[in-house]
Amino acid sequence: MLIMLKLDAPREHIEKVKTKIISFGCTPHEIPGSLKLAIGVTGASSSLQIDDFISMDSVDDVVRVTKPYKLVSREMKSEDTIIKIGNQEIGGSNLTIIAGPCSVESRNQIFDIAGELKEMGIVFLRAGAFKPRSSPYAFQGLKEEGLEYLAEVKDKLGMKIVTEVKDTQTLPLILKTADILQIGARNMQNFSLLEEVGKINKPILLKRGLAATIEDLLMSAEYILSKGNYNVILCERGIRTFETHTRNTLDLNSVPVIKKHSHLPIFVDPSHGIGIWDKVQPMALAGVACGADGLIIEVHNHPESALSDGFQSLTPKNFKSLVEKIKQLAPIVDKKLDL
Amino acid sequence: MLIMLKLDAPREHIEKVKTKIISFGCTPHEIPGSLKLAIGVTGASSSLQIDDFISMDSVDDVVRVTKPYKLVSREMKSEDTIIKIGNQEIGGSNLTIIAGPCSVESRNQIFDIAGELKEMGIVFLRAGAFKPRSSPYAFQGLKEEGLEYLAEVKDKLGMKIVTEVKDTQTLPLILKTADILQIGARNMQNFSLLEEVGKINKPILLKRGLAATIEDLLMSAEYILSKGNYNVILCERGIRTFETHTRNTLDLNSVPVIKKHSHLPIFVDPSHGIGIWDKVQPMALAGVACGADGLIIEVHNHPESALSDGFQSLTPKNFKSLVEKIKQLAPIVDKKLDL
Amino acid sequence: MLIMLKLDAPREHIEKVKTKIISFGCTPHEIPGSLKLAIGVTGASSSLQIDDFISMDSVDDVVRVTKPYKLVSREMKSEDTIIKIGNQEIGGSNLTIIAGPCSVESRNQIFDIAGELKEMGIVFLRAGAFKPRSSPYAFQGLKEEGLEYLAEVKDKLGMKIVTEVKDTQTLPLILKTADILQIGARNMQNFSLLEEVGKINKPILLKRGLAATIEDLLMSAEYILSKGNYNVILCERGIRTFETHTRNTLDLNSVPVIKKHSHLPIFVDPSHGIGIWDKVQPMALAGVACGADGLIIEVHNHPESALSDGFQSLTPKNFKSLVEKIKQLAPIVDKKLDL
Amino acid sequence: MLIMLKLDAPREHIEKVKTKIISFGCTPHEIPGSLKLAIGVTGASSSLQIDDFISMDSVDDVVRVTKPYKLVSREMKSEDTIIKIGNQEIGGSNLTIIAGPCSVESRNQIFDIAGELKEMGIVFLRAGAFKPRSSPYAFQGLKEEGLEYLAEVKDKLGMKIVTEVKDTQTLPLILKTADILQIGARNMQNFSLLEEVGKINKPILLKRGLAATIEDLLMSAEYILSKGNYNVILCERGIRTFETHTRNTLDLNSVPVIKKHSHLPIFVDPSHGIGIWDKVQPMALAGVACGADGLIIEVHNHPESALSDGFQSLTPKNFKSLVEKIKQLAPIVDKKLDL
Repeated sequence: MLIMLKLDAPREHIEKVKTKIISFGCTPHEIPGSLKLAIGVTGASSSLQIDDFISMDSVDDVVRVTKPYKLVSREMKSEDTIIKIGNQEIGGSNLTIIAGPCSVESRNQIFDIAGELKEMGIVFLRAGAFKPRSSPYAFQGLKEEGLEYLAEVKDKLGMKIVTEVKDTQTLPLILKTADILQIGARNMQNFSLLEEVGKINKPILLKRGLAATIEDLLMSAEYILSKGNYNVILCERGIRTFETHTRNTLDLNSVPVIKKHSHLPIFVDPSHGIGIWDKVQPMALAGVACGADGLIIEVHNHPESALSDGFQSLTPKNFKSLVEKIKQLAPIVDKKLDL
Repeated sequence: MLIMLKLDAPREHIEKVKTKIISFGCTPHEIPGSLKLAIGVTGASSSLQIDDFISMDSVDDVVRVTKPYKLVSREMKSEDTIIKIGNQEIGGSNLTIIAGPCSVESRNQIFDIAGELKEMGIVFLRAGAFKPRSSPYAFQGLKEEGLEYLAEVKDKLGMKIVTEVKDTQTLPLILKTADILQIGARNMQNFSLLEEVGKINKPILLKRGLAATIEDLLMSAEYILSKGNYNVILCERGIRTFETHTRNTLDLNSVPVIKKHSHLPIFVDPSHGIGIWDKVQPMALAGVACGADGLIIEVHNHPESALSDGFQSLTPKNFKSLVEKIKQLAPIVDKKLDL
Repeated sequence: MLIMLKLDAPREHIEKVKTKIISFGCTPHEIPGSLKLAIGVTGASSSLQIDDFISMDSVDDVVRVTKPYKLVSREMKSEDTIIKIGNQEIGGSNLTIIAGPCSVESRNQIFDIAGELKEMGIVFLRAGAFKPRSSPYAFQGLKEEGLEYLAEVKDKLGMKIVTEVKDTQTLPLILKTADILQIGARNMQNFSLLEEVGKINKPILLKRGLAATIEDLLMSAEYILSKGNYNVILCERGIRTFETHTRNTLDLNSVPVIKKHSHLPIFVDPSHGIGIWDKVQPMALAGVACGADGLIIEVHNHPESALSDGFQSLTPKNFKSLVEKIKQLAPIVDKKLDL
Repeated sequence: MLIMLKLDAPREHIEKVKTKIISFGCTPHEIPGSLKLAIGVTGASSSLQIDDFISMDSVDDVVRVTKPYKLVSREMKSEDTIIKIGNQEIGGSNLTIIAGPCSVESRNQIFDIAGELKEMGIVFLRAGAFKPRSSPYAFQGLKEEGLEYLAEVKDKLGMKIVTEVKDTQTLPLILKTADILQIGARNMQNFSLLEEVGKINKPILLKRGLAATIEDLLMSAEYILSKGNYNVILCERGIRTFETHTRNTLDLNSVPVIKKHSHLPIFVDPSHGIGIWDKVQPMALAGVACGADGLIIEVHNHPESALSDGFQSLTPKNFKSLVEKIKQLAPIVDKKLDL
């Protein structure tokens, strides 16, 4: 259920509505908008009646939300969510590019790549310090050491850091450095982790699971919002199908579907989505063309010797040529790329 | 195996090579190019040795083809195939749009839609007369009557007709009217039909099957080429996955993969690929952005009362707005749209 | 819609009902049962009212069929269909084993294998003469020659022949020899072929397509029944999923689902279903355990040199050991194996 | 790499081998067998040479392990792993049945069901206290209260408790009561959780993820073994495919494949695998028939009012009839069911 109040509703009217919601055993969520102030209701809201609220002071309208996901839905909030990180904005008409290597491999490696990206105007640097890997014997990241290098890059180059959090134990550590916390595909339904990152106030980049439907992805985002963190960026990175030529099947259909049903920004990861470096450019352009709010792309200065995912990483030179194309494409789909 | 001859090789040298190939129980295929004249060899070519041919007159080079598909592969022919239909060209730097209703429903319906499309500059009209349907009780098309209306449209409006052939029995009938014959997803591995259309000289639009890998699609095209018809257009129209929100999962990854491994044009069908009309535009743009040579799009003047696939059809008005976007997008990916 | 008449309804009452159905533009289908005589109605039956029929002579009951498939559904016919081929019965409490090589490869090969199978009591011999293959360059079967050997086996050893029909052109030829016509997975939605085999009176073994849902399979069977051939055997042979270790994913769930919703017999093909010979035995047993009415199993005397599918074929010795296990298992699931 | 020592190798010889392994930066794992004592080597073992070990005292043989999974593979340990829990044995020729409700719902509910199961001879009771759910608003289990009831059942009825652990935070709590810890499908690649349960010595029931290949499942088990816990039971519970009639697609192919490549026991969960109660019996029988070492089945005394998964739960009466069938089936596949 969603209760719409006048934008100038006095605080006491708002509090009265929230108190009444709580009295029914439900939870109120204030959702600010530019035209109305909405209060979303989650919990066992089926017992609530529209009549319980419609005649309260400052209440304009009361509507039922028909989807299983509530706070993430457009029914609850019709305007696009815009996430602010320093002077950067994600979502709405902004097109954002996150770039960097799969993993931090050494101080030199990350400074070299970050330096090249910064020169192109890239603000958001991706790089993993704690890496979840299918094999216990594969390179698991530089861990704390990797985070230290990222902190140094952040400090010296002024870039924003996007890095993965793979469990609740390392969350406090990662929080010190990360500007955006990434949750990987295999953790998309790690509900305990979702609840924990729901209690912090930094943006979360939530990747779609390999067998997750669009609804599953939205339900997982709902876990985060329901704990209070509204800064969630969704990310399509490919699903698993019978096709063996490509690493994953990038399901770009999900972009316009999610734009319709949710107010959250949706990014595309063409690097994992196709998994072959020389086909990342066309898939990145396709992602922008179908309406994505951003891209996350693997860039490595020596892809051939990368410790992970080298085969899907662009060189800085190829990445630069992609960025030039994106600059031309963005205005056609009413997006602005601030590079 | 592929035998490369000088472009100015005299006919007798060419015939000598072909005779030798036949003497080994294999089949020669002349593949004209702008730099070399190639003769592809199919059949049990593993018994052939490079030394058998390398010293023959006019022979420049002999190479083994490593893929299971031969004639469709870039190894056999590195240049893009360009298909000519009257004064129209498909493939290479051309971007082609095929549009029209799922089915011919009446004389008025097809003339109304065709008229509106022609006014926008569309040359290729799609519309089914014989419709393969999952249920024996569903509308199966107007059949002969539908073909007659299409012939009339062709005659009066000068449009090119793209229509489906669902079996070998009706092939002669359809050949009279069609400029491009479409083979549907469910017939992609109807090998007897593939062989028959391999013996004619009209272009074939071959749609990817719901469970077909990219390699399967190329192997099915190989069936057609191996019988002598080199005018094949491939078409990505979505595969079947666990996602239930969309009708199919449009696998745009296939576009750059096919562009790399085959010289044949590859089209995208966003209407079937997502199956929801208000999301056809973003997916059509994505198709162009990742390098498709053309689009096939369902357009209906009254989608709400269409006898089939109305929910995925654009109105002429929405289609026009899509075409405007495509015009802007095409040059960014080095394509020209001749509208 | 289904109209139930008394078992002893006189012919004129039956004809009156059928005439009335036809007068509404629909098609009547007599479905004999042991308790009632049912007349199924297909076509645009939504215009028919129960009241139109309920008070007619000999009519006991009129019910709407809720599924998209009609004639194949248990709603139309609650008793198991039993198919008679000579003195053999398929369906009901019978467990049937069809065995033999993927393809007829030579006169000697087929006589050797058939001889060994006959000795074990096997009546139904499978072997392909016309083989649909993904590659145009792969072995396509011995064709007419293969059929001649099968006719000879039938004549000399008295076995029943199960062989694939891949197109309408070769149907008359195959009809001369085959006792059961197999339609392969890739032809499951070749609707023109389905309609043709719907007009003959020999049993059809219809294999599930690689991307076909259970409902798709039943709809394809409906095509055959709707043309008048009620002798259809369904066959689960594995679907295509992301799992790469096995050739297909044998979806045994389909067996109890189909037993519930349809009266048609359902077989299991463990050879294609897993695609690795040393794991065919456990999957064959699983097929019987979950209620299959029969199995179709590839047996070859020299799997290592088979022209197709050798890696999934059992030797006669291994097949014999499987049959011994099946004999023990059948009574536990209330099936009788007549060997 | 795997180093085989004589069974009576003195401790000092064993330690010398282990020390040498460590000196190369790798990790030794003692794998006891009945014929040989094996020491598995994990880590960057590619630098090790067979010659480094083959001439050491008591060493009989040194072999390379070719699979990406090591400790779980039959190459490392050819004999079936048998897991002992009190006087119960899991694996080898034992067939084990775990039964109980999806969730503990109340003290009465769990005692009623457990009582009925115990009477049938069932030793292992399944029931969730902490439930991972797709929606944050769905019933998440009775949590600590649920564990208390399970502890009481264990104490009063002497049953063994199988319950899910969904995160590392609640692991210590669950360890107090559980005899077997279940890791759910959505946590199969929660590597931090896998590592934690690798450090305890209680058996882990590891369920296959919805998009996990067989190799992924074995790699996740490898995580647990690599940390020292060898008591892992694998569990096939269905994968996600395009089929919508059933909740999941139970991939029974995985059973014989896993039996071949791993020494670990493999169970089948037919309740989740098909998701429809009246089809659980055939799929349970199929699981046993193809070689599963055990079953895990949802049983509820009032399925119609269960707080979760009621539609796939058997009543105790139906479960009893299934057990009778299993008793007959087990000896045919050389299994003994100790009920």
